[in-house]
Amino acid sequence: MAKRILVLGGDGFCGWPTALRLSAQGYQVDIVDNLSRRNIDNELCCESLTPIRSISRRLQTWQQVSGNDIGYYHINIATQPEALLQCLRDIRPDAIVHFAEQRAAPYSMKSSWHKRYTVDNNVSGSNNLLAAVVESGLDIHIVHLGTMGVYGYGRVDGAVIPEGYLPVQIETEAGWQQTDILHPADPGSLYHTTKTIDQLLFYFYNKNDNLRITDLHQGVVWGTQTPETARHDDLINRFDYDGDYGTVLNRFLMQAAIGHPLTIYGSGGQTRAFIHLRDTVRCIQLAIENPPQTGARVDIFNQVTETWTVAELAQKVAAIAGAEIRHYQNPRKEAAHNRLEVERGKFQQLGLNPTTLDAGLLEEVVDIARRFRERCDPARILPSSRWTKDQQLDSEGTAETAPAASVAS
Amino acid sequence: MAKRILVLGGDGFCGWPTALRLSAQGYQVDIVDNLSRRNIDNELCCESLTPIRSISRRLQTWQQVSGNDIGYYHINIATQPEALLQCLRDIRPDAIVHFAEQRAAPYSMKSSWHKRYTVDNNVSGSNNLLAAVVESGLDIHIVHLGTMGVYGYGRVDGAVIPEGYLPVQIETEAGWQQTDILHPADPGSLYHTTKTIDQLLFYFYNKNDNLRITDLHQGVVWGTQTPETARHDDLINRFDYDGDYGTVLNRFLMQAAIGHPLTIYGSGGQTRAFIHLRDTVRCIQLAIENPPQTGARVDIFNQVTETWTVAELAQKVAAIAGAEIRHYQNPRKEAAHNRLEVERGKFQQLGLNPTTLDAGLLEEVVDIARRFRERCDPARILPSSRWTKDQQLDSEGTAETAPAASVAS
Repeated sequence: MAKRILVLGGDGFCGWPTALRLSAQGYQVDIVDNLSRRNIDNELCCESLTPIRSISRRLQTWQQVSGNDIGYYHINIATQPEALLQCLRDIRPDAIVHFAEQRAAPYSMKSSWHKRYTVDNNVSGSNNLLAAVVESGLDIHIVHLGTMGVYGYGRVDGAVIPEGYLPVQIETEAGWQQTDILHPADPGSLYHTTKTIDQLLFYFYNKNDNLRITDLHQGVVWGTQTPETARHDDLINRFDYDGDYGTVLNRFLMQAAIGHPLTIYGSGGQTRAFIHLRDTVRCIQLAIENPPQTGARVDIFNQVTETWTVAELAQKVAAIAGAEIRHYQNPRKEAAHNRLEVERGKFQQLGLNPTTLDAGLLEEVVDIARRFRERCDPARILPSSRWTKDQQLDSEGTAETAPAASVAS
Repeated sequence: MAKRILVLGGDGFCGWPTALRLSAQGYQVDIVDNLSRRNIDNELCCESLTPIRSISRRLQTWQQVSGNDIGYYHINIATQPEALLQCLRDIRPDAIVHFAEQRAAPYSMKSSWHKRYTVDNNVSGSNNLLAAVVESGLDIHIVHLGTMGVYGYGRVDGAVIPEGYLPVQIETEAGWQQTDILHPADPGSLYHTTKTIDQLLFYFYNKNDNLRITDLHQGVVWGTQTPETARHDDLINRFDYDGDYGTVLNRFLMQAAIGHPLTIYGSGGQTRAFIHLRDTVRCIQLAIENPPQTGARVDIFNQVTETWTVAELAQKVAAIAGAEIRHYQNPRKEAAHNRLEVERGKFQQLGLNPTTLDAGLLEEVVDIARRFRERCDPARILPSSRWTKDQQLDSEGTAETAPAASVAS
């Protein structure tokens, strides 16, 4: 069993609770992070709704409450490949969890600079990691956070999204033959494109170098705390509510907490897949404990527990927290409606017992949002990125693309 | 019709004859090149078999023999995106031909540094170009040099390689439905991986920004001169014979010219697709003259004219030039044998009349190789890159993987 784990991006929204979970479960954990997410807060003039502590304070407090040390390396894996290699040689991890990518779709579409930053940062980071693992000669299992967005939404009506590999029939001289292919990529932003690029890099390094790789195509994460981050206020996880980094459900819950209308972009008919942060960290542990065999293809899981339309989410939040729902023009270029059926049996077979939206944790998030509502800057709530010059940003909710009658709860 | 063309990588093996061809055909041509290919010659301690002139001398001589000016911009598109954007705004090209990528598979596998350089250079370059075209607001047709290597060799036995898009059947709740997908990627090196990544970037920018893009999946190029490069010795094209940049057929022809055994890596059963350089430049002009409509998907052509096994090529060269054939261990990780059937009707429909190996141009290449044989450094002929640490480099031709009886002509 893997004992020593390196968490790349271990200061981030998923990385931090993952590092704590693994540490609490008896793994020796080290974090690599260049703190870019904190720097982007500076750039965007916003900050986590929850008051997050510095990485050194976080680790010091974790040591005090758990007795466990977590090591920390300030390395930019996209620009400091030699430092990354040296870190691998020093630590000799059994597994690496790779979260170290710019992960906001709106941020990736903000400007040419942000497009370039996202592609350069994410692609170079992943490739540098893979090359370093090969060069190290160590047999390290790589667990990567992908996204459901690699599949796109509804390319063939009535088809189910498989866990990575799609059985298709291809015409040959002997008739139609069935074969498994990596599901065709249909990214909706440059951020999502980088995750489809990661898939190709994983495919090649797995084929050429027999690297053992697990790719986790995660849905939209909601929730903010895990049992470990809740152990002390210094360990609290970040909570993004802004138009770039705030994901839809957390954004709604925070909006409800401060009395802001719930901001549906477009019709709300977009169906997306969701997972609670507690399940995210459980899934990552399960992935670490169930690595692929050497020589096996890249192992792909769908890390999701349920699917909802954006409008359904808004109605749930409105029902528990009381809130008006308002439709805004959609800054994204995406279908107004889609169906989404996703295979998700692999993690359940490994023992995952999903935390669903109906499990009472929505209130927990509203409570956190209410507790820190004074820290919210309402000016940061609406989107400030758009996918093309033609897309409108809509600060007033004039809702040209929305149904005529917006629903107030 | 497109009038003003920007050729990125216009100092290289395909870029230079393309720039001259287009200039001779009445287009206003500008070249962007950072001269990286010349610098890599310095790094690898080898040089073109043919004595190529500096870019300024080349352009000066072209002006003298043709009366046409070609502009030149020393820009690294991977690291100088602002300069690239300014260049687009100044020139306002109707079309851009994008050759500006590191294009040797062995070089891309040489070390971690070379892996990183190839991925960073090629991916950032393409993404920077796409972002700059969007930001410019200009309606520019992008013509990109891809590679047949994106398809891989023989994923489903008996299947024909289509021109980019593969019809497949996918299971849905209404039964198996047919749809077109981008052919599954199966790259054989990190260089090839970057071209599969380019495809994803093109897919996204085409979908999001309606960019008009043509991707040309080219086979192995042979030949060295075109009618335009042959007009003056100062215009001569480069001729690579080394283990990294020398492509198989030109390498054989040069080996025959200097009396070196023809170097087959492995069995020689690898089937590859080929095209003469004269057809390359014709195809690019045809692609420029037949852009996709705005709103149409990325247009993909297979830029190949015939397929041969490596052993068949060696036998052809041995027959015309007299040469021993010797098998060496294969530094690449690839199948010993494969079939390859490739659709190539689209360029023929546009009027391409292929230059085949039997058309007499093999002798022309041997003549050039003989003329400059004194410039050859035999130490540079054998491969110096290997795909994994396990692959052997074989300086003696002990040929453990080769047939017992090597064939001498």
